[in-house]
Amino acid sequence: MAEASVKPTPLLKDELDIVIPTIRNLDFLEMWRPFFEQYHLIIVQDGDPSKTIKVPEGFDYELYNRNDINRILGPKASCISFKDSACRCFGYMVSKKKYIFTIDDDCFVAKDPSNKDINALEQHIKNLLSPATPHFFNTLYDPYREGADFVRGYPFSLREGVPTAVSHGLWLNIPDYDAPTQLVKPRERNSRYVDAVLTIPKGTLFPMCGMNLAFNRELIGPAMYFGLMGDGQPIGRYDDMWAGWCVKVICDHLGWGVKTGLPYIWHSKASNPFVNLKKEYKGIFWQEDLIPFFQSVVLPKDCTTVQKCYVELSKLVKEKLGPIDPYFVKLSESMVTWIEAWDELNPGGPAQKLRARYEYTSPFISSFPLNSEVGLRSDRRRKASF
Amino acid sequence: MAEASVKPTPLLKDELDIVIPTIRNLDFLEMWRPFFEQYHLIIVQDGDPSKTIKVPEGFDYELYNRNDINRILGPKASCISFKDSACRCFGYMVSKKKYIFTIDDDCFVAKDPSNKDINALEQHIKNLLSPATPHFFNTLYDPYREGADFVRGYPFSLREGVPTAVSHGLWLNIPDYDAPTQLVKPRERNSRYVDAVLTIPKGTLFPMCGMNLAFNRELIGPAMYFGLMGDGQPIGRYDDMWAGWCVKVICDHLGWGVKTGLPYIWHSKASNPFVNLKKEYKGIFWQEDLIPFFQSVVLPKDCTTVQKCYVELSKLVKEKLGPIDPYFVKLSESMVTWIEAWDELNPGGPAQKLRARYEYTSPFISSFPLNSEVGLRSDRRRKASF
Repeated sequence: MAEASVKPTPLLKDELDIVIPTIRNLDFLEMWRPFFEQYHLIIVQDGDPSKTIKVPEGFDYELYNRNDINRILGPKASCISFKDSACRCFGYMVSKKKYIFTIDDDCFVAKDPSNKDINALEQHIKNLLSPATPHFFNTLYDPYREGADFVRGYPFSLREGVPTAVSHGLWLNIPDYDAPTQLVKPRERNSRYVDAVLTIPKGTLFPMCGMNLAFNRELIGPAMYFGLMGDGQPIGRYDDMWAGWCVKVICDHLGWGVKTGLPYIWHSKASNPFVNLKKEYKGIFWQEDLIPFFQSVVLPKDCTTVQKCYVELSKLVKEKLGPIDPYFVKLSESMVTWIEAWDELNPGGPAQKLRARYEYTSPFISSFPLNSEVGLRSDRRRKASF
Repeated sequence: MAEASVKPTPLLKDELDIVIPTIRNLDFLEMWRPFFEQYHLIIVQDGDPSKTIKVPEGFDYELYNRNDINRILGPKASCISFKDSACRCFGYMVSKKKYIFTIDDDCFVAKDPSNKDINALEQHIKNLLSPATPHFFNTLYDPYREGADFVRGYPFSLREGVPTAVSHGLWLNIPDYDAPTQLVKPRERNSRYVDAVLTIPKGTLFPMCGMNLAFNRELIGPAMYFGLMGDGQPIGRYDDMWAGWCVKVICDHLGWGVKTGLPYIWHSKASNPFVNLKKEYKGIFWQEDLIPFFQSVVLPKDCTTVQKCYVELSKLVKEKLGPIDPYFVKLSESMVTWIEAWDELNPGGPAQKLRARYEYTSPFISSFPLNSEVGLRSDRRRKASF
């Protein structure tokens, strides 16, 4: 206890949950201990619920297996994937914190070029607490970072920025490649440390990877649904991609920012490319239609909450993607179920309240305060009381 | 001669001109000698034409002063700015090469993190010869770079990329800040080497700086007009910004890419912020209207050449920006004069021919060959024969 008392309180200690989907013992947490041990973990156990997952001593956590998910959500549990890391989004739903960081259990602490351990979580928090700049590109990258600013020619009316909803981190060592690229380049490793954080411009989609990801749950949580993957579904490995496309379209609509770049984690092992190909191959075809679909989505003006946007998006998915495969009809229905379950577990959702308080006007006359000022509700420490 | 014969021929030696606007002796070229000496230089002398500009021995160059510009262009010389580095675009017009690299005379060779001199020109050429990816964001930055690729979730139909029209390089030491930022942060220096090249997404504008810039003249040359600045004009220091907005809108329309990032140069001296404020202050107001204007520009489908796009844009400038200030009416007329002068000096412009040969179809079914294959006309060595 004496030792603990001298440790500085990390940023957002009581406002952030770390969500980890897993099927194995969480030995990887040992390496993260200095950075994670003061935070609360939400562990979503995938696969056989009778298996016991060991969590190293000293971590504060709640753990949900499939039986818990079924018990808590009842028939609505159908929207949570099984035998796929997509199940992690259940953790986003049961959290009551303002921020989420999610990480895979094969991700370790990376080192920066000076050989110092990278505190990935701290960098994500910095990214989330500083504004984003989706309306105009800054050539010196993040203008809010120490030693940087907006360059000549950047409109002054846009320099306040907009709230940051998502911080997408990257990976050293094993890059996040699809099965065909894995097969073609089995030995490729990412060793390039790019010292930058940047906002993905409005109107631009990106491939969001769920391996090392943080977001403002109060802002965008209800759109962070990882879809239907794995057991009983025709595809896998598109869970985070699906969430990324939906989230980006909704952030663009509501005037929020998505950042990518720092922090890096060390991705330790490449998954089996043959197994991956089997999971991915339908997605590889489908994404050729999905990307143009998401690029063309226009949400109606009266969609002023994430929930409304998401339900509207589900209708468009059914209408426009349903003809491609019945899977998308099922997915669109699950999107609605997800929102219903979210609202049930999060009554009087803060996203709605926030939205009403700070109405977004235009990209050029932003009345939105900096992200760090919004949503000052005091976080309640949540017990798994379902 | 014996020494020269063992030097390896640099990339695009006979297909690229280096354009330098200046008012002083070009001693700065000494530092660039290893990288520039085998290329041809086009020097555009600004200010007093009776002054003699000294160029270090051994460089192959042609030099134009104001008298030359007036003689060559006659009444159309009115479109070329005087007493402003915007005059550099005259060099783009008289070049007959496929590629242009332009650099300011206060820019020196920077060092990379391993303390090695950066061959900025070589990096620009790499950027221009490899495709760009404006239709979808790749989180590991340039996918064509050694050690990188497209990440999971990147549509396969977009992996061929599109031709790269522009390579925008960055600056270590003195960052390219506007006068207000210079005044507020007089001591800020850029020391962050970000090891990345990325494509600015379609639909996103950026502040293009002319200090360290390369482009494919055959593709986008006629749009690289640096506007009316300096002597007799109400603003300065918006020449490159103006060109950047026009170029980006036209590249987006014609399906070409714009990259930013590497290479860095060492920007040696900050210009006087008080002088800059005087030049910039109208621009600071006007850009608040210019950005929304350029963001909303839609060019008609029948604008299939850069020239057609540019003339169309000039009409929109007159119509939409003219009401802001009579300057924009004058500027729109100069845009037309510029195109007329360009076509006079570049009869049967390659941009038109190219366009006809490789018709762009859609972002998803790109029939455009890689940039390195297009425009195979043999370059004629040009003499200043006007």
